[in-house]
Amino acid sequence: MKRIAVLTTGGDAPGMNAAIRSVVRYGTNNKLEVWGVFRGWWGLINEELKVLDHRSVSGIINQGGTILKTARCQEFYTPEGQERAFQTIKKHDIDGMVVIGGNGSFTAAHIFCTKYNVACIGIPASIDNDINGIDETIGTDTAVNTALTAIDNIRDTATSMERIFVVEVMGRDSGFIALTVALAGGCEEAIIPEKKFDFEAACHDIVNGNLRGKISWIIVTAEGAGRAEDVAKKINEITTLETRTVVLGHIQRGGRPTARSRDIALVLGRSAVDCLLKGLSDKVVGIAGGKIVTVDFQKAIAKKEFNLEGMYNLIKQLS
Amino acid sequence: MKRIAVLTTGGDAPGMNAAIRSVVRYGTNNKLEVWGVFRGWWGLINEELKVLDHRSVSGIINQGGTILKTARCQEFYTPEGQERAFQTIKKHDIDGMVVIGGNGSFTAAHIFCTKYNVACIGIPASIDNDINGIDETIGTDTAVNTALTAIDNIRDTATSMERIFVVEVMGRDSGFIALTVALAGGCEEAIIPEKKFDFEAACHDIVNGNLRGKISWIIVTAEGAGRAEDVAKKINEITTLETRTVVLGHIQRGGRPTARSRDIALVLGRSAVDCLLKGLSDKVVGIAGGKIVTVDFQKAIAKKEFNLEGMYNLIKQLS
Amino acid sequence: MKRIAVLTTGGDAPGMNAAIRSVVRYGTNNKLEVWGVFRGWWGLINEELKVLDHRSVSGIINQGGTILKTARCQEFYTPEGQERAFQTIKKHDIDGMVVIGGNGSFTAAHIFCTKYNVACIGIPASIDNDINGIDETIGTDTAVNTALTAIDNIRDTATSMERIFVVEVMGRDSGFIALTVALAGGCEEAIIPEKKFDFEAACHDIVNGNLRGKISWIIVTAEGAGRAEDVAKKINEITTLETRTVVLGHIQRGGRPTARSRDIALVLGRSAVDCLLKGLSDKVVGIAGGKIVTVDFQKAIAKKEFNLEGMYNLIKQLS
Amino acid sequence: MKRIAVLTTGGDAPGMNAAIRSVVRYGTNNKLEVWGVFRGWWGLINEELKVLDHRSVSGIINQGGTILKTARCQEFYTPEGQERAFQTIKKHDIDGMVVIGGNGSFTAAHIFCTKYNVACIGIPASIDNDINGIDETIGTDTAVNTALTAIDNIRDTATSMERIFVVEVMGRDSGFIALTVALAGGCEEAIIPEKKFDFEAACHDIVNGNLRGKISWIIVTAEGAGRAEDVAKKINEITTLETRTVVLGHIQRGGRPTARSRDIALVLGRSAVDCLLKGLSDKVVGIAGGKIVTVDFQKAIAKKEFNLEGMYNLIKQLS
Repeated sequence: MKRIAVLTTGGDAPGMNAAIRSVVRYGTNNKLEVWGVFRGWWGLINEELKVLDHRSVSGIINQGGTILKTARCQEFYTPEGQERAFQTIKKHDIDGMVVIGGNGSFTAAHIFCTKYNVACIGIPASIDNDINGIDETIGTDTAVNTALTAIDNIRDTATSMERIFVVEVMGRDSGFIALTVALAGGCEEAIIPEKKFDFEAACHDIVNGNLRGKISWIIVTAEGAGRAEDVAKKINEITTLETRTVVLGHIQRGGRPTARSRDIALVLGRSAVDCLLKGLSDKVVGIAGGKIVTVDFQKAIAKKEFNLEGMYNLIKQLS
Repeated sequence: MKRIAVLTTGGDAPGMNAAIRSVVRYGTNNKLEVWGVFRGWWGLINEELKVLDHRSVSGIINQGGTILKTARCQEFYTPEGQERAFQTIKKHDIDGMVVIGGNGSFTAAHIFCTKYNVACIGIPASIDNDINGIDETIGTDTAVNTALTAIDNIRDTATSMERIFVVEVMGRDSGFIALTVALAGGCEEAIIPEKKFDFEAACHDIVNGNLRGKISWIIVTAEGAGRAEDVAKKINEITTLETRTVVLGHIQRGGRPTARSRDIALVLGRSAVDCLLKGLSDKVVGIAGGKIVTVDFQKAIAKKEFNLEGMYNLIKQLS
Repeated sequence: MKRIAVLTTGGDAPGMNAAIRSVVRYGTNNKLEVWGVFRGWWGLINEELKVLDHRSVSGIINQGGTILKTARCQEFYTPEGQERAFQTIKKHDIDGMVVIGGNGSFTAAHIFCTKYNVACIGIPASIDNDINGIDETIGTDTAVNTALTAIDNIRDTATSMERIFVVEVMGRDSGFIALTVALAGGCEEAIIPEKKFDFEAACHDIVNGNLRGKISWIIVTAEGAGRAEDVAKKINEITTLETRTVVLGHIQRGGRPTARSRDIALVLGRSAVDCLLKGLSDKVVGIAGGKIVTVDFQKAIAKKEFNLEGMYNLIKQLS
Repeated sequence: MKRIAVLTTGGDAPGMNAAIRSVVRYGTNNKLEVWGVFRGWWGLINEELKVLDHRSVSGIINQGGTILKTARCQEFYTPEGQERAFQTIKKHDIDGMVVIGGNGSFTAAHIFCTKYNVACIGIPASIDNDINGIDETIGTDTAVNTALTAIDNIRDTATSMERIFVVEVMGRDSGFIALTVALAGGCEEAIIPEKKFDFEAACHDIVNGNLRGKISWIIVTAEGAGRAEDVAKKINEITTLETRTVVLGHIQRGGRPTARSRDIALVLGRSAVDCLLKGLSDKVVGIAGGKIVTVDFQKAIAKKEFNLEGMYNLIKQLS
């Protein structure tokens, strides 16, 4: 193992730059030449890559986004695209790859590394925290805190104007962000993809609360479980109460990474390089139960389990 | 002048609590009894008010929203509503009022104070910065910084994924927030109610930029000038480029007030009480050109002028 | 179990209020009467306590500090003080206590609950993260992020002026904060109580860096390992280079709790009440390896182990 | 005017990068070649400068510090140093200079531009807000907000533990930051260089407050008026009450600039270039009373006046 490449793919997540820094500096300290590939798989196909050294990754540890940029790349799902990507790998004598990304990235990396026998290690970075077998992806903690700040702000208005708010957070298939911020934000309800939401019961609570004098209300919905506008419309239809919506959207994706998002990224950057040095491939590195673990790509992309009932019940009990 | 009342009306703005604190503490230090009216005019009509003392306003200086709550109140626009409000004033021997709010609040206050000869002084608090004759309303600086943080976050993704984003900020009739954050955020365009937007020219710039390699783009639109979704659709129709939207919405309204929002609120709270003590009425207190001024309610609610061409041109010159 | 008391002792930590909220709301939802004791053990001795209900803990989830206040109380270490505290417990028919605090608090709670046979459950809240047998205390994550923001700020000046900075963070006996922020902040060195620091080697690195053009440098020191001023003086003596100091001090203690500090607090509030309901005592509740656990007070107050070598080495490898 | 140079000198201030961006982009849009000089006057003496273009200043608008770096340079105060600096100007055919900095920078610029007849325009950037004839320097607003966040954090502990805190903020000769944050932070006292502080009276207030139950207290001191430790010692001697100190130090200097710090920087960058294009020299550009003004260097470096009595009295009246 003399020369490795690192790339970021899929949606950007805060902490990706810290992961790049770690791979580059730990790699070069271990006598590896580290190449940065631009725009994910697209850069491999189009031969956009360059050597990174200690200086290339200065001053990026506290920056959101990714200096290597990222892109969705349909061509990589074709045999021709994969072949071109492999030619770049061969041409540059790259012995191993670190793929920083999420579910889709690891699906692609699994196919590529098994088909061409190129060592690939994944670093889980995605605000959705949807990688199976590990506790937390890089970026989740930052996204949750960004959403929480937004909800704290909205609470000021909800309380002052005594209104019902529906706040839509990210999470296509996962209610992780929704539950985590609803709990931390002292919200009254969370609507998540993993659990059928009982509108009648929720509206009953709202109307009852209203009679007792509890008039402000924040309901968090994961984008995959119901768009804010639809949720608000339903609540308004059932209760006749005025309901406002906020869609947090892309503000959850960027920003200065939190300590946790950075520290996980830095630790896993080292682990990924160590895995390549040990000859491992087709695996994700991650932290589970406080320990560094490796998880096969195929297991990592399976549906992640988490104790949603416990969190959901706690939200209800404390609201 | 022995007894005054303070209320907050219209949309909440960060810094309202600091203004309440100042009115209460400065008032009581000047031997006034200060009553807090809840939910704006509604509380006057429904006799929901109580005496506030030094302790009542402890620990609120750094809180968004308003401890007096606020509400829209249609009834106050009827003669019956106004009469009931006046009866509360008479019953409680209130000699003067401090009305913390925006345009709508001052329109109502003007009618009320001239009709019933009740001394009323307004403190301008509104994130829109749309009060005429003064430099800056309480809350604007906080809202602008909240929007700017959001735009800094979005920039991370826009740059990493090389996308066009349309970000909708508050401002029904005023482009103040839009221009201020577009400039501070290094955005490429601002769409504001005061100026016709040339979509063809903007799209021409975008396409040209694309050819030169400038692929990420943030366009800020004031809600009153064009909804993000409509703007994105038009740009997409003309350029065929994928365009994302973010609507910042109510997150701009709450949150810890900035130093500036607090300091202006604290200074104007004192000024409002001083005005009442001097026998003034039917006026807004504010800061203009660094000095404390009073402006007649009728002038204050007129269309505010600001140097939008200068700011707009600078955005374009620096993008 | 019909009536429980909750108190906060020792240094305040962000998230304590969220823990109080959880104990009160989850307790009352489980038919317990929950009393809040003011100023920790002092309030028990001086009979300063009152019933808390759902409303008492509204709007505190996002506030630093503790609404129950906290105090150091020497009297509780005397038999007379303990006896008076116990009389308050008896007089108010309190069946169990939730003690929110750190090492010192649990030492005292252990003595008290074994001597008087009063059920006591501890919730670990302390920015130092020094409770043994669990992963993380309430408040640590917030303190680390506050320190990190400060270090990011200092980095701007260190880089612009090409200076050496020594930044002192909290941690009397524990290097946890120092290592965590030094890693996340991209700092060059961390000085911690658990490890002898080699000044000669560090200064050698600094001088060598200087020759290579690396002129700015941030060294984080835990207060228990060396005061910033002393560290700076030594570095200056050895290298003759100008060195600046910053002592972060009490800014690390307060502030809006992060999502993580709140969520852990809310979960453990429920767990503490559940423990009392199950008849447990003399234990701390906590999260270890992602699971909720209980740890005997005596074990909890023992010296906490963590993988400091791994973190320290990573800081050096990435700097 | 075909070629201009821009440099940053003195202490760094947040917003300097925004000013550089503005000078570079507005300058190049106006057909000027813009050279960036590194490390202030030192770079002029040592011929460290390079051409900056549109791309050179991408992505810096939201970064604290200065990409041009800054340094104190004793050599520039000697005739030889000035001569060497001038030779660099001549050699590179530089027709005008933009000097971004504070008091010391403008003193030097005045000497240089009058001695060698090189057109020099200053942009005021300094967290101390000590430039005479203008309202606000670039960076002040950010520094004040950073200090305010710190004080809000400290307030949590002060209230929870019922302690007296002395917080030292920046300001060698100016109490601007101290007064502004003391007011916005709801602090009880401010000690500033411009006004003799009456320790006996203050301690009398503290002891009286204590008797009334007001036990927590925050006293802000400007570094130039009294070091936190000395102030605390005096208060402790007079009152015997335990007193804690926090020195905010360099955290006030860096960090993401606020909207205001950026917008002022961007506007003044344009103004500075416009001044050079108009043939002006030996002047600072600034904002006064909401308007862009120019002030002679010699006037700008004179002692700045501000309404400190009004602010000081308000702090006392509201505490």
